[in-house]
Amino acid sequence: MIRRIALFLGFLPLLLLADEGMYPLSEIHKLDLQKAGLHITATDIFNENGISLVDAIVQIGGCTGSFVSPQGLILTNHHCAYGAAQRASSTEHDYIQNGFLAADQSREIEAKGYTVRITESYRDVSAEILKGISDKTGPVERTEIIEKNSKQLVKQTEAENPGKRAEVAEMFIGKTYVLFIYTYIRDVRMVYVPPRSIGEFGGDEDNWEWPRHNADFSFLRAYMAPDGSPADYSPDNVPFQPKNFLQIDPAGASEGDLVFILGYPGRTFRHRSAAFLRFEETSRMPLVVEWYQRYMELMRTNSSLSRDVAIRHLNRIKGLANTEKNYRGKLQGMKRLGLTAKRQAEEQDLQNFVLADKSLDKSYGTVLADLNQHFNDQAASFEAEFLLGQLRSAAILPAIARSLIKAGVERVKTDLERESAYMDRNYDRTKHGLLMNLNNFYAPTDQAILTMILQRLAELPASELLNPVQDWIRDNGGSSRLPTAVEELYTKTQLTDPVEIDRLLSLAETGQLPATDPMILFFSGLNDSYKALDDLSDRRKGEINRLAGKLTEMRRLYLQKDFIPDANGTFRLTYGYVRGYQPRDAVYKKPFTTLSGVIEKTTGTEPFDTPQALIELYKKSKSRRFFNQNLNDIPTAMLYTTDTTGGNSGSPVLNADGRLVGLNFDRTFEATINDFAWSESYSRSIGADIRYILWITGEFAGASHLLREMNL
Amino acid sequence: MIRRIALFLGFLPLLLLADEGMYPLSEIHKLDLQKAGLHITATDIFNENGISLVDAIVQIGGCTGSFVSPQGLILTNHHCAYGAAQRASSTEHDYIQNGFLAADQSREIEAKGYTVRITESYRDVSAEILKGISDKTGPVERTEIIEKNSKQLVKQTEAENPGKRAEVAEMFIGKTYVLFIYTYIRDVRMVYVPPRSIGEFGGDEDNWEWPRHNADFSFLRAYMAPDGSPADYSPDNVPFQPKNFLQIDPAGASEGDLVFILGYPGRTFRHRSAAFLRFEETSRMPLVVEWYQRYMELMRTNSSLSRDVAIRHLNRIKGLANTEKNYRGKLQGMKRLGLTAKRQAEEQDLQNFVLADKSLDKSYGTVLADLNQHFNDQAASFEAEFLLGQLRSAAILPAIARSLIKAGVERVKTDLERESAYMDRNYDRTKHGLLMNLNNFYAPTDQAILTMILQRLAELPASELLNPVQDWIRDNGGSSRLPTAVEELYTKTQLTDPVEIDRLLSLAETGQLPATDPMILFFSGLNDSYKALDDLSDRRKGEINRLAGKLTEMRRLYLQKDFIPDANGTFRLTYGYVRGYQPRDAVYKKPFTTLSGVIEKTTGTEPFDTPQALIELYKKSKSRRFFNQNLNDIPTAMLYTTDTTGGNSGSPVLNADGRLVGLNFDRTFEATINDFAWSESYSRSIGADIRYILWITGEFAGASHLLREMNL
Repeated sequence: MIRRIALFLGFLPLLLLADEGMYPLSEIHKLDLQKAGLHITATDIFNENGISLVDAIVQIGGCTGSFVSPQGLILTNHHCAYGAAQRASSTEHDYIQNGFLAADQSREIEAKGYTVRITESYRDVSAEILKGISDKTGPVERTEIIEKNSKQLVKQTEAENPGKRAEVAEMFIGKTYVLFIYTYIRDVRMVYVPPRSIGEFGGDEDNWEWPRHNADFSFLRAYMAPDGSPADYSPDNVPFQPKNFLQIDPAGASEGDLVFILGYPGRTFRHRSAAFLRFEETSRMPLVVEWYQRYMELMRTNSSLSRDVAIRHLNRIKGLANTEKNYRGKLQGMKRLGLTAKRQAEEQDLQNFVLADKSLDKSYGTVLADLNQHFNDQAASFEAEFLLGQLRSAAILPAIARSLIKAGVERVKTDLERESAYMDRNYDRTKHGLLMNLNNFYAPTDQAILTMILQRLAELPASELLNPVQDWIRDNGGSSRLPTAVEELYTKTQLTDPVEIDRLLSLAETGQLPATDPMILFFSGLNDSYKALDDLSDRRKGEINRLAGKLTEMRRLYLQKDFIPDANGTFRLTYGYVRGYQPRDAVYKKPFTTLSGVIEKTTGTEPFDTPQALIELYKKSKSRRFFNQNLNDIPTAMLYTTDTTGGNSGSPVLNADGRLVGLNFDRTFEATINDFAWSESYSRSIGADIRYILWITGEFAGASHLLREMNL
Repeated sequence: MIRRIALFLGFLPLLLLADEGMYPLSEIHKLDLQKAGLHITATDIFNENGISLVDAIVQIGGCTGSFVSPQGLILTNHHCAYGAAQRASSTEHDYIQNGFLAADQSREIEAKGYTVRITESYRDVSAEILKGISDKTGPVERTEIIEKNSKQLVKQTEAENPGKRAEVAEMFIGKTYVLFIYTYIRDVRMVYVPPRSIGEFGGDEDNWEWPRHNADFSFLRAYMAPDGSPADYSPDNVPFQPKNFLQIDPAGASEGDLVFILGYPGRTFRHRSAAFLRFEETSRMPLVVEWYQRYMELMRTNSSLSRDVAIRHLNRIKGLANTEKNYRGKLQGMKRLGLTAKRQAEEQDLQNFVLADKSLDKSYGTVLADLNQHFNDQAASFEAEFLLGQLRSAAILPAIARSLIKAGVERVKTDLERESAYMDRNYDRTKHGLLMNLNNFYAPTDQAILTMILQRLAELPASELLNPVQDWIRDNGGSSRLPTAVEELYTKTQLTDPVEIDRLLSLAETGQLPATDPMILFFSGLNDSYKALDDLSDRRKGEINRLAGKLTEMRRLYLQKDFIPDANGTFRLTYGYVRGYQPRDAVYKKPFTTLSGVIEKTTGTEPFDTPQALIELYKKSKSRRFFNQNLNDIPTAMLYTTDTTGGNSGSPVLNADGRLVGLNFDRTFEATINDFAWSESYSRSIGADIRYILWITGEFAGASHLLREMNL
């Protein structure tokens, strides 16, 4: 059970919109779930004084997972368990390519680097976090106070709750803060991971798309010390016995069914101002799309040279493409829904309401104008800021040089004062990441990226931010000589040598990093720019913290309603219906895909390389379990209107009886708009159908012991 | 009216399949059109002794067109009238970009290079064409005899019918031939051409796709001399008065309606052997796709350098992409339908039937084996043959060198002996084409194409065909020195100079083409290869002519049925129903698109740059004519199951009453399979909805006089 400790989040009746909403624990009991079609009660879902479904939900590997047996068996996505399978693989055992199945518990393999987070309790701490802040507090100071208050509260809470971890979540920016206490299980093991050709079938080509045909699931298991306390991996550990686990409904869902989802959605921006939306739509996202496309085009062209070069670009292209496609989806959605103009109209009404009352005018009269000013300022210098950021992160050697410089600064501080990546508990991973990146280094790509960024920076108007970099360009022969100047950097730098990087890391440890390497010299010369950039970022954060808090107050006063806070990685419930949609004129997409669709997509070539054994099983599927007569097929994936975002990966999709019928793993291209607004027309999330999960586990993998463990 | 003169095509009852079939004139009266849902009779469609719908159908610019007024007004596709608009454009008047509307008849502009072909009569001439051929005739001789018989028949027919043109069409390969007599109208004028942003909306991105949102239509007009005879353009000419013209139904069609199409489909391969299908599926099409993709990748990379370079590649990329996508569609369709395996099974039955009867066995026992052998042989050397062909055609300077060499050979022959492109009546266009190509020359692309082809040719096993080119490679330093050797060709050739090309063309006229230019020298050195290649092609043609004729006979004997001959550019009727389809698992595409879909696709950037005036009209469309209450929108394009292929562009889509409800312009990606087989699941053709055509003409262009001319 999860305990709630004196939470005070809303003070007005909750605004309920059909299907829309990622409801925090504190709001679940306010929903009329019976009216929505649920057969179970809010208390069955969340019961702070007893056992409920929420007790079966965990966070794992940045995703959501759920317990599905009394023996700590966890169901989550294949792409969430990917890292574990990758780390456990060797030249003899390729668990990505071939999958992994433990014949019994004794053969389950450690899922290195994985923890299972269980929510224990939460309480409102807004007053404690905002203590010492007034309207007069300057933006930078404001950011500092909030950080200090949070750190203190966390430290104190962890001292009072030995073995637990505390985290403060911002619910409404500058307004509401909640403290969560978590238990972390540190021994997690791999139970069943399907082969890549099934779990990732369709790969990047199908990413953000519907119809989907991958079985994006894996089974893991949580282990505890024999005394029931969390412990590092040990053969002596025993399966964790969760407070609760989910029941599976092997009959699956049908079109029109109510479904709900429990999980940890990452981040949404539903309550932001029109000014913010305009900045995203016209400044930030288009610029990111433009540059990511330029990087990808360059990398793809270079990749055509050889397989070896292609491999070095693979993961970077995947990451760039994921964001680029997401942003294109959002831009399409903002345009189709006319989101910015609608928000602008709402704010006009809000402004009229404030102006009509002298005391409101005094408190809030300039909030919207200030927000406009804030984002206009940011838009004016955004290209310079973005490209300065890219300069030190987009190419590999610059990123290494920057990390080394940063290490020299941070490592001489006390651990608590360090930036997170340079704190002792994270530093090994940071150093490891540097050297891993070097494996993907390909000089022509690196040089071309650095050159194209510098060329654009040379063209931008002079400013305090840009003076150091523009001076460097001038001193090195101007814009036209940039390719040569960059080539010289790359010819002379030693940062391509892991031994040299190791040596410099040791020196950085004592703050004695020498600025002799030309790449380090180059970035050291830009210190003033980056200092100014970081200060700007702190100031902006503080300003927005104040203004966003004010805006929330204004809205509450005007609408006399309460709102659901934006997603922030904390626990949420969302519900909706299994339903198809019309992504564009004359095209209708149905809510279920089928095993026949897997066969139809199969080309034999990755990512459409269905195993022959599955093709053979397909031919016999008609007479077997999980075959659905209505669809005349095995259902593989499903579509529903619930309100999700990143972090909801691995969330259980539950039916009106609270039984598991699917496993959430993605959204449609059109549903990328969810981050800004839920849309009845376009917001559709994608889940693996439980019947396909069970068919793959039972029929394809032959893991009938797992089905038995889940009472099937 | 069209007269039929003693046509004898089929001798057995016609095999009728729902929706499938491109029926020639001779077969229309055998169809049970009433049962299919038609309200008019076969005689209303084709009446050899009177006026019928067929009399309103013409061939124009490689497409189909139809008369839609008594004043010779012709409705055809925008992409069919494109050449006319392009040739009429100048720096002052860009009729592609802005469209063209003649305020009245006096302002209609000449559609240069356009003719309107009207079918006058036809008769079976199989006996005359196959005269002198027996089973013993060798393949090369067979090809020669058929060509000679055809030329003689055409010459004689044209002498007997002054002012007309005669053409022989092969209906069943090696079996049935029909002589058509045509009238050509030579004065054609532009009446209304919508702007590219409407007529070509969606451009290449939407090519072979559904849903579509372009208004692919234009109006032209046929003119005759005042005495009613065909004449070249003259201001004295008068509008042609057709025997018949189509009535338009401004109410359009609805889902499920019967529609039929009249027109001139180009080429299908429905009656070919399994061996042919296998060759296409595993040898020819994959190789073409691979090389076209290589060319496109190269051209796109080079195009990213500058707008000027991009423009030189634009049309070539468009052409390559069109074929490449069509072939990919066909390959997908062949795989999904298991076409080759099905044909193979049919042929096994056929073979068993033949083997069971001694006399049949004697005549036909080896036909299928011979066909297998034929295509196995062709597959074995296909890569060499294909690449030799590409070597002289894929890059621009090689194509020019090859044409010059060919001119030197052909131009000293008598006109009738020359290859078509070098006959007096075509030669000006051939020469003009050479110089036009030169405008698109970009040396790095040209060199890279020639190099990559030679590199592959160097790797192929030696053969009579390849000896000359492999010798050249060896003599020039081998495969690794190819880039340099090709660069030398390009540095030294003068063929980039139009004046030099002109000079060489004059010398070719007398057969005195000097082999001094290195590019000409190179290709002259390969004369033996190309002679062998051309001989091989003639021999294959003759062999297939014999075997395909035999195969048709076998099928008729076995099935006791008659067949519809493959499309061959002659007149055909096809009928079907307005219907959506499922292109892939979980996706359904509806049969109508809407004006809202145009707005939805509009980005403001070509090819999605809808004119602002249209966007404004859209906002008022609800209260205006052509708005459809069921769709709650203006319908823009429609989908139907009729059996079409290339050449059906511009064909009228007619309803059960024989009234025009749409204008055919494309097929779906899945329907590219039509060339090999019609499929109830996938064969869908695409037409512009008459309501959108009339809305654009009346509301957008304001050409109410044209609507009046069509009695609307």
